[in-house]
Amino acid sequence: MSKFPVAILGATGLVGQRLIQLLAGHPWFEISALAASDNSVGKKYADAVNWHLPIAIPDLVRAMIVKPCEPPMDAAIIFSALPSDVAGPIEDDFANAGYLVSSNASNHRMDADVPLVIPEVNPGHLDLIHAQRARRKGAIICNPNCSTIHITLALKPLDDAFGLRRVIVATMQALSGAGYPGVASLDVLDNVIPYIGGEEKKLESEPLKILGTLENARVANANIRISAACNRVATQDGHLEAASVEFLTKPTLDQVRTAMIQFTSEPQALNLPTAPARPIVVRDEPDRPQPRLDRDEGNGMSSVVGRIRECNVLDYKFLVLGHNTIRGAAGGTLLNAELLVAKKYI
Amino acid sequence: MSKFPVAILGATGLVGQRLIQLLAGHPWFEISALAASDNSVGKKYADAVNWHLPIAIPDLVRAMIVKPCEPPMDAAIIFSALPSDVAGPIEDDFANAGYLVSSNASNHRMDADVPLVIPEVNPGHLDLIHAQRARRKGAIICNPNCSTIHITLALKPLDDAFGLRRVIVATMQALSGAGYPGVASLDVLDNVIPYIGGEEKKLESEPLKILGTLENARVANANIRISAACNRVATQDGHLEAASVEFLTKPTLDQVRTAMIQFTSEPQALNLPTAPARPIVVRDEPDRPQPRLDRDEGNGMSSVVGRIRECNVLDYKFLVLGHNTIRGAAGGTLLNAELLVAKKYI
Amino acid sequence: MSKFPVAILGATGLVGQRLIQLLAGHPWFEISALAASDNSVGKKYADAVNWHLPIAIPDLVRAMIVKPCEPPMDAAIIFSALPSDVAGPIEDDFANAGYLVSSNASNHRMDADVPLVIPEVNPGHLDLIHAQRARRKGAIICNPNCSTIHITLALKPLDDAFGLRRVIVATMQALSGAGYPGVASLDVLDNVIPYIGGEEKKLESEPLKILGTLENARVANANIRISAACNRVATQDGHLEAASVEFLTKPTLDQVRTAMIQFTSEPQALNLPTAPARPIVVRDEPDRPQPRLDRDEGNGMSSVVGRIRECNVLDYKFLVLGHNTIRGAAGGTLLNAELLVAKKYI
Amino acid sequence: MSKFPVAILGATGLVGQRLIQLLAGHPWFEISALAASDNSVGKKYADAVNWHLPIAIPDLVRAMIVKPCEPPMDAAIIFSALPSDVAGPIEDDFANAGYLVSSNASNHRMDADVPLVIPEVNPGHLDLIHAQRARRKGAIICNPNCSTIHITLALKPLDDAFGLRRVIVATMQALSGAGYPGVASLDVLDNVIPYIGGEEKKLESEPLKILGTLENARVANANIRISAACNRVATQDGHLEAASVEFLTKPTLDQVRTAMIQFTSEPQALNLPTAPARPIVVRDEPDRPQPRLDRDEGNGMSSVVGRIRECNVLDYKFLVLGHNTIRGAAGGTLLNAELLVAKKYI
Repeated sequence: MSKFPVAILGATGLVGQRLIQLLAGHPWFEISALAASDNSVGKKYADAVNWHLPIAIPDLVRAMIVKPCEPPMDAAIIFSALPSDVAGPIEDDFANAGYLVSSNASNHRMDADVPLVIPEVNPGHLDLIHAQRARRKGAIICNPNCSTIHITLALKPLDDAFGLRRVIVATMQALSGAGYPGVASLDVLDNVIPYIGGEEKKLESEPLKILGTLENARVANANIRISAACNRVATQDGHLEAASVEFLTKPTLDQVRTAMIQFTSEPQALNLPTAPARPIVVRDEPDRPQPRLDRDEGNGMSSVVGRIRECNVLDYKFLVLGHNTIRGAAGGTLLNAELLVAKKYI
Repeated sequence: MSKFPVAILGATGLVGQRLIQLLAGHPWFEISALAASDNSVGKKYADAVNWHLPIAIPDLVRAMIVKPCEPPMDAAIIFSALPSDVAGPIEDDFANAGYLVSSNASNHRMDADVPLVIPEVNPGHLDLIHAQRARRKGAIICNPNCSTIHITLALKPLDDAFGLRRVIVATMQALSGAGYPGVASLDVLDNVIPYIGGEEKKLESEPLKILGTLENARVANANIRISAACNRVATQDGHLEAASVEFLTKPTLDQVRTAMIQFTSEPQALNLPTAPARPIVVRDEPDRPQPRLDRDEGNGMSSVVGRIRECNVLDYKFLVLGHNTIRGAAGGTLLNAELLVAKKYI
Repeated sequence: MSKFPVAILGATGLVGQRLIQLLAGHPWFEISALAASDNSVGKKYADAVNWHLPIAIPDLVRAMIVKPCEPPMDAAIIFSALPSDVAGPIEDDFANAGYLVSSNASNHRMDADVPLVIPEVNPGHLDLIHAQRARRKGAIICNPNCSTIHITLALKPLDDAFGLRRVIVATMQALSGAGYPGVASLDVLDNVIPYIGGEEKKLESEPLKILGTLENARVANANIRISAACNRVATQDGHLEAASVEFLTKPTLDQVRTAMIQFTSEPQALNLPTAPARPIVVRDEPDRPQPRLDRDEGNGMSSVVGRIRECNVLDYKFLVLGHNTIRGAAGGTLLNAELLVAKKYI
Repeated sequence: MSKFPVAILGATGLVGQRLIQLLAGHPWFEISALAASDNSVGKKYADAVNWHLPIAIPDLVRAMIVKPCEPPMDAAIIFSALPSDVAGPIEDDFANAGYLVSSNASNHRMDADVPLVIPEVNPGHLDLIHAQRARRKGAIICNPNCSTIHITLALKPLDDAFGLRRVIVATMQALSGAGYPGVASLDVLDNVIPYIGGEEKKLESEPLKILGTLENARVANANIRISAACNRVATQDGHLEAASVEFLTKPTLDQVRTAMIQFTSEPQALNLPTAPARPIVVRDEPDRPQPRLDRDEGNGMSSVVGRIRECNVLDYKFLVLGHNTIRGAAGGTLLNAELLVAKKYI
C-alpha cells in the first residue's frame, strides 16, 4: 500500500526530533512536511534544527524546507509536537480545516469532546471524534502528559481487575521532559528540583479521564483519587515514579503482579507497528527499574514496573519507569495515529 | 572549664571525617583519640584517611596515631562512626567497659533499653540510660538513620499539635549516605537507583520509637503507620523527602505551617553548641528545598521544609530536606553528646 | 576609617552575586548601589535576583532598590559584572563621567590604555590609568578572563625566574563560567562540550598583555606563544587547566616547584583584605588539584597547582585549578579595587 | 561456512559484556565458552554477571556455565578481557597451549614479539606472530589502550602523508574506562580527576610501537615524541582527546583534513564485519565531537575528529573522540580477530 503522508508541527523541538526518528522507515506513514516557528521557516531542516539525538539526522528530512505551522498542508495526519504556549490555536486551526491532529500538547487534553488516549488503556475513547466533528470538520486527539502515560498504563490492569480507590505517586523526572534548553545545568548538577510547573495537576487529573468511561459521547471520570509530588532529577530520559495504591478490594501481591505481566490490549491485538509486545514489563530484581538501564525497553514504548510490595499505608507500592519522549510523547502520538488508521478514522 | 576528651571510632570514614570537622574548635569537647580498622591502626591520621571534605584536615588530628577500636581509651565520650557490619560488638565492648557511646550505627537502635534520640524530639528518652546501666557499667545512645532524622523532626510538631495517623514518604537520597567508595559512578550517572538496602524498614520503624512515649523504662511506640520508598540520586549531600501525612484531626494548612515554623525544643533552650537556632526552617518559594542550596541551612543541622500543600489522598503533603552526614549522622551524634553533658549524664 | 561606597553593575548575575557575597562585611568597602538591566530596575534586590549561592542573600542588600546602569551613582568605585554584550558602552559612560570602573567584562581588556591587571602579576600596569585619564575623567581597570587568571598566576614566577617561550594549555571549565542560565543540562550531562566561544583567543592573547612590560605608557606584550583548547565539563565551579611549558633555559623540576611555592607579591606585602596568603598553592598528591576539593583554597583566591612533571615535547607539564567566579571574576575585580585604594588611585 | 568457536576470558567485566554484545549474531564467530574469576565459576552467566548495558543479556549466553580461566577450552580464538592484575600469566598459559589470544589487557602489549595492532594502522605487524611462535605453539595479539587507539587512528594518515614529529594530547576520559565498580560517584560528581594511574605512559609509548615499522621480525618504533595529560570526567562512555601536532613538513589545514577524511585501510578493503565504513569521521561543526552525541559513530568503531585548526605552538590542533569500550576495547579485539581470520592466521 502507499503510505499516508504526515506532517510534524514543532519539528525542530525534542519531541519533533523523536517523531522524525520514529517515522524514518515507518511502514504506514511518510513525512510529507515539517513545520516550526518563524525563525526556522524557509530553512533546510538540517540548518534549522539543534539536533540532540545520538544518531544522525535521517537523510530523508535533512533538506526539507521548514514550513509555517498553518494549513493547508499536504498530510493525512498532523502530528503536533508544539509547546503548549502556542499549540492551542494552531491545533484548532488544523482541526477546523478538516485535519486529524495527533497532539502531544496539553492544551486540549481536557476538552470534553477531545479523546485523551493511551491505545492500550482507552482505545474506545476515539469515538469522541464523532462528537468533536459535530462542531468542526477535523479533530484533535491528545496524548497524555509524559508522567501520566506510564503510571496510567501500570494502573489500567489493576483498575480493571480489582478497582482502584486511591493512588499516591512521587516522580523523579528526566531533563528531556522540560524541552530544550529547558533546565539549566547549574540548577540540577548535584541537585534535585522538587517542582515542575503544572505537572502535579496533570498527573492528578488526566488519569481520571483516561480511565473514565465513555457514555453518550461524554467521558465520566474514574472515581479514583490521585496525589502527585513531582521532582526533576539529573537524568537525560526516563521518568521514574514511586507509587502506592489502594484498591476497592485488596488483591494478593501475586494477583497484582500477574495482572500487570499478562496485560495486553488492542494495539497488540491489532499488531500496530509501534506497539510493544508487552505494554508493561515487570522486573523482579530488587533494584529495578532504573532510568538508564530500562528506559529503552520495548524500543522505549513499554512501561517497566518493579519492586511490587506491601505498603503500610495504602495496599501496595511499586515503581514504574518509562521513556518520556518516546512512549511519553512522540511514540505516544504515533501509536495514537496508528490506532486511528487501524480503526478506520482515516 | 577544661574540655571533655572524646574519641572517634571509625574516624577515617565519611562520618568520622565530619565529626572531626565539627569537633575542631568545639567549646566542650576535644578529640583525645582516633580509632579505625586494622589497616589504619598505627598510621598517622593524615596518612590513613582518604579525606573527602573540601576543607583541609584540621591540624590537631593530622599527626594523631590511629588506634584500634577497643577499650580502654582515654575519653569521656566515645563517638561511634563505625559501619554497621562491625559496630555492634565493638560498641557493646565499650559500653560494658563503662563508656558512654554516642553511636551513629544502626545495630543497637532498636534495643529496648537503648535510647534512640533526636534531641529536639525525645530528649527524655535519655532516661533509658538508667535502665541500660542495670545490665552494664556504661551505655549506648543512638542517633537515627539519616533519612529518619529529618522526616521525624518535621513530624514532631505536627504529632504534638494534631496527632499523626499515617505517613507516606518517598526519598531522594544523596551519595554520601552510602559511605565511601559507596555507589559506583557508572551506576548513578544519568540514573536513579530505586533501592537502598534496609533503608525503608528503618524509615518505617525508627520514627515510631522516637515519637513513642517512655513509660516504666520502656518506650511505647507511637501509633502511626509509615510507608517509605527510598531512592538514590546523584547528589553529594542532602536527603530530600516527599511526604504525605494524615492527622487524627485535620488542621488547617496554616496551622501546619505555623507549628513547624514555631517549633523549638530543649537543645535550643539549653543553648547546646551544635543546636541550630531553628530546627525546622520553612521556605515559601515554590521550588524549595533543594539539596545543593539548602543542605547547609543551620550549619547543616536544620531540616528545611517546603511546598506544604493539600494532598488528595492523605491530608497534606510537603518536602523535607536535610544534610545527611551532618544532622543526619555526625552532627546528630554530637548533639546527642551535648545533651548528655547538659543533662548531667557525664 | 569610614568605608568607600561602591556600586555593582550587573548585580543580579552570577558574578554580581559573588561580589555581594565578598563585599558583605568588607573592611574597606560598603555597597551603596546595585544596578542591573531594565527588567530588574525598581524592584527590591531580593525580588529581582534569581539567587544561586548556597548561602542566604545578605540582609544589607535584600531591600535595596535596583537602579539602572547609568551615572551618576553615589560610589567611589563601580564594579562591573555586566555581560559583554552590554558592558562596553556602559563602562565607557561611567569612566567618561569620572568614575573608576573595576570591570570583569571582556570588552575593554585589550584597549591600549586600559590596565588588564592581576594584582600579584602586574600591579604596576595600573599606571596606565594616567594615560587613560588623558582622554577622560575616570578610568576602566580590567580583570582578565576566568581561565587566563589562573594560568597566568602560575606562569608569572616561572617567567620571572626562567623566561617562558611557549605554552600549550587544555582547559576543563566549570558551568558557572557560562553565567545563568548558561549551559543547558541536556547538553552537558554525560558529556563534555569541546568549545567555548571566544575563549581560546582570550587565553592566547590576554596573558601576553598581563605578562608584558609597561614602557612609555604602553604595554609591550610578552614574547611568549600560547595555544589553548577550551572544554566545558559538568562541574559547578573551578576551572582546571592542563599546561605544558617551554623555557628560554630549562630549569630543574625542583626549581619550577620552588618558584611557584615561594611566589608572593604586592597584594600580600600590602596585606590587601582579599589577597590570599599564598597566591599559588602547590599540592604533591598524584591526583590533585580537583575542582570540588580545591576550588575554595584561599577562600577561592588561590590558584592550586599539581602534578608538576617532565613533558616529552615541551619542558614541563602541570595542572592549575582555580575558582572561576571568585578569583576568576568577582574576587579578581575586588582585589583590583583594593589595589587601587592601597596605591592611592582613589 | 560454519562459525569459529570463540571463548571470552573475563566475561563478566564491562569489556567482556561488550564482547558478548558484539559477538551476538556475528557472522564468523560464535561464543563457545565464557570464563571468569573463581567467584563466578560454576554459575550461570546471568547469575554471575552484574550486567551494565542498556540492552538485555543475549539469550545465547544467559544459561552458559562460567568456566575457570585456564586451558583447554574449545575455541579457535580466545578473547581476553581480563584486568591487567591477572591477565599476564593466564594469557601466557593459553598462548603456550597453542591458542591464539586476542587480548585487551596491557600486560603483553610491549613484548617484542607481540603484535600491538589497530587493523587500520598496522595490519602487517601480525607477522610478529611467526616470531612469537618460535617460542611457543600459540600467540598473543594485543589491542592498545583505549585512549591510544583513537589518537593513533587519527595520527596514522597524517604520519603517512606528512611525517609526524611531536604530539601533545590532553584527555577527558569516560568512567567505563576504569571498569566496574571503578570510580566512586563521590569522587567524580561535580568534579574532574586529573590522574589515571599508568595511562599517560601508555599513551606516550604505545603509539610509537603501532606506528613503527616491522623489520626483521622486530618493530622499530616511530620517531615521534608524545606528551599526554590524562583526566577522568563524568561521562559514561567516550574518550575525548585534545591534541596538538607538529609535522616534519607542515601541510595546509585542508591537506590535514582531507587526509583524515579519505583515510581507509585494510579492514575496509577486506570488508571485515566489524570494520566501520569510515575509520575517521571528520565533523565540521564548531562544537563537535561530543562524547554523548558522537561515541556511537560507526557503531562505536569510528574515531570522530573535529575542530582542526592552527596551533600557536605546534602546527595544528584538533579533537578526537571515540568509544572506549567498543573500538577502544571489545570492538578492537574483535576487529583484530577478524583480521586474523581474513589473513589466514586461523
